[in-house]
Amino acid sequence: MSRLKEFGEFGLIELLTRNLHKDNAVTLGIGDDCAVIRAKKEYLLFSCDAFLEDVHFRREWASPEDIGYKAAAAALSDIAAMGGTARYMLVALACPPDTDSAYLERLYGGIKSAMDTERVSLIGGDTTSSPHGLVLNMTVIGSAQGNPVCRSGARPGDLIGVTGHPGSAALGLHALEHGESNAPEVLIKAHLRPRPKMMEGFFLGGANEVNAMIDVSDGLLQDLWHIAERSGVSMNIDTTKLPISTEQKDYAHKTGVSAETAALSGGEDYELAFTVSPQTAGQLLTEFNLQFTLPVTIIGTVGKGPAGITVDGAPRTPEGFDHFQELK
Amino acid sequence: MSRLKEFGEFGLIELLTRNLHKDNAVTLGIGDDCAVIRAKKEYLLFSCDAFLEDVHFRREWASPEDIGYKAAAAALSDIAAMGGTARYMLVALACPPDTDSAYLERLYGGIKSAMDTERVSLIGGDTTSSPHGLVLNMTVIGSAQGNPVCRSGARPGDLIGVTGHPGSAALGLHALEHGESNAPEVLIKAHLRPRPKMMEGFFLGGANEVNAMIDVSDGLLQDLWHIAERSGVSMNIDTTKLPISTEQKDYAHKTGVSAETAALSGGEDYELAFTVSPQTAGQLLTEFNLQFTLPVTIIGTVGKGPAGITVDGAPRTPEGFDHFQELK
Repeated sequence: MSRLKEFGEFGLIELLTRNLHKDNAVTLGIGDDCAVIRAKKEYLLFSCDAFLEDVHFRREWASPEDIGYKAAAAALSDIAAMGGTARYMLVALACPPDTDSAYLERLYGGIKSAMDTERVSLIGGDTTSSPHGLVLNMTVIGSAQGNPVCRSGARPGDLIGVTGHPGSAALGLHALEHGESNAPEVLIKAHLRPRPKMMEGFFLGGANEVNAMIDVSDGLLQDLWHIAERSGVSMNIDTTKLPISTEQKDYAHKTGVSAETAALSGGEDYELAFTVSPQTAGQLLTEFNLQFTLPVTIIGTVGKGPAGITVDGAPRTPEGFDHFQELK
Repeated sequence: MSRLKEFGEFGLIELLTRNLHKDNAVTLGIGDDCAVIRAKKEYLLFSCDAFLEDVHFRREWASPEDIGYKAAAAALSDIAAMGGTARYMLVALACPPDTDSAYLERLYGGIKSAMDTERVSLIGGDTTSSPHGLVLNMTVIGSAQGNPVCRSGARPGDLIGVTGHPGSAALGLHALEHGESNAPEVLIKAHLRPRPKMMEGFFLGGANEVNAMIDVSDGLLQDLWHIAERSGVSMNIDTTKLPISTEQKDYAHKTGVSAETAALSGGEDYELAFTVSPQTAGQLLTEFNLQFTLPVTIIGTVGKGPAGITVDGAPRTPEGFDHFQELK
């Protein structure tokens, strides 16, 4: 076991960045002032996400592999939400000087496992000390074949679709917070190891009929509100259509929490929400179901502006996760 | 005065990102899942730097404008070190929920002031809460006309050059730490407001004779060691050639600290160190002096491998700033 204090910054970088996948366009990877990519004529997508101990994760629940995996997954998910392909990642890590290097190897193992699935190259980053807890910052770069799918393209008349079972991660977090050790594994996993929906996003992004898309990171209402606002449309959710799984129902029943509230306002599912023109929605969903095991469900409709969200026709304010209003 | 708790994440983003320069290639800026850039066939440079309160800055010495400016400058400096042009930036900000929004406006003012000088576009970022102190992560993207200048190109026989007066920032930090209120302003400014040497880096990077380059962020010995290691060469520094300014000399004399140690091991100057073939060094330096007011000085020579650093012929281990060995 060796502590970072003895290990040194550069030994650490070497240890953590062995055996990495390297894309052909990477002219220069880790180890210089900058990474160098030989770009072609293409659309490049950029996103970054901060990931702080006791805000975004807790070490008592999450293994270092979980923490690394989820940080990478959350960043990758932003690329999926535009219908792009993830290509490169930079990881800035700040950690207390007495952190065990084996812990960080495991954390990077989690990052690599999320990256390797998508053949993403780690091209750079930073390592520094932190006076309080672990801090990760993930920068992800992707590319898009055609026009990326933005939040601003929703049109009145569109149907609203969502993948998977939103709210699962929030119920998983509830179970961890309340020591519900008999909670369904699928809920716990939804919170600790959310899979970014890369292939699904690429498929939906490639379909001309998908007019707007976002990943559900802050909660369905909050994230759909972003589409409504950017597109200048109203959106109505039909709660009878919400894809609440058997496990969500069972857990909600046993604990008295609302599976519907979790589905509408719970964050960190990293499912994809999108709007699709009604003429072609049926065929798109059929094709989606042929290609993927993940369910996709139509949960509502897009109406004219002004921008707003209604649930079963009743106006709602976006009440998802706001990092400044509630410290978790 | 409004606290972030009431302000909300999205109100904050709007407040902080008004009136930004936007490059023509930016298809989509802040406000979607990703930023979108229309790349051409070109080399793109990527770097990221974490910037933590009480590690990289202290609020009691640095104004919010200073903190933002320096965080951006440090990131931009990595692009200068490759001879590139800075183009885009993403800023991830984590701050305590009771932070005053006016404080953050001033901090972003500092970031913008560093970016505007270089016509860099802020294309994205993240805002989240932090349980302990401010955390910034700066991701910078640049482009290079020809081949970027790497650390690995130094050749035996090259001369070692450096811009400015390395060690000034370390002496400025010493003055702040020891309450030396009569310390020369130029030293304090070197620590609080280091100017990234963008034009100088672009000039040196465009010169065929410059074989390797790095920015002096961890201290001259440490950073030259990176060149030595990557290039497989030895490097000797002649201390009589170190460009120690009158202000450095005076401050060192008054306080009993060593200006030479500061020049060799002090970090955060963001000067540029490079190696240049001896045949053309004279002409390059003449042209540099015609274009810039910043001095440039030859301080040593490159010899054959194995990789190593000597100071006046005596072997030295790189003893610059290592974030894990000393928490500042």
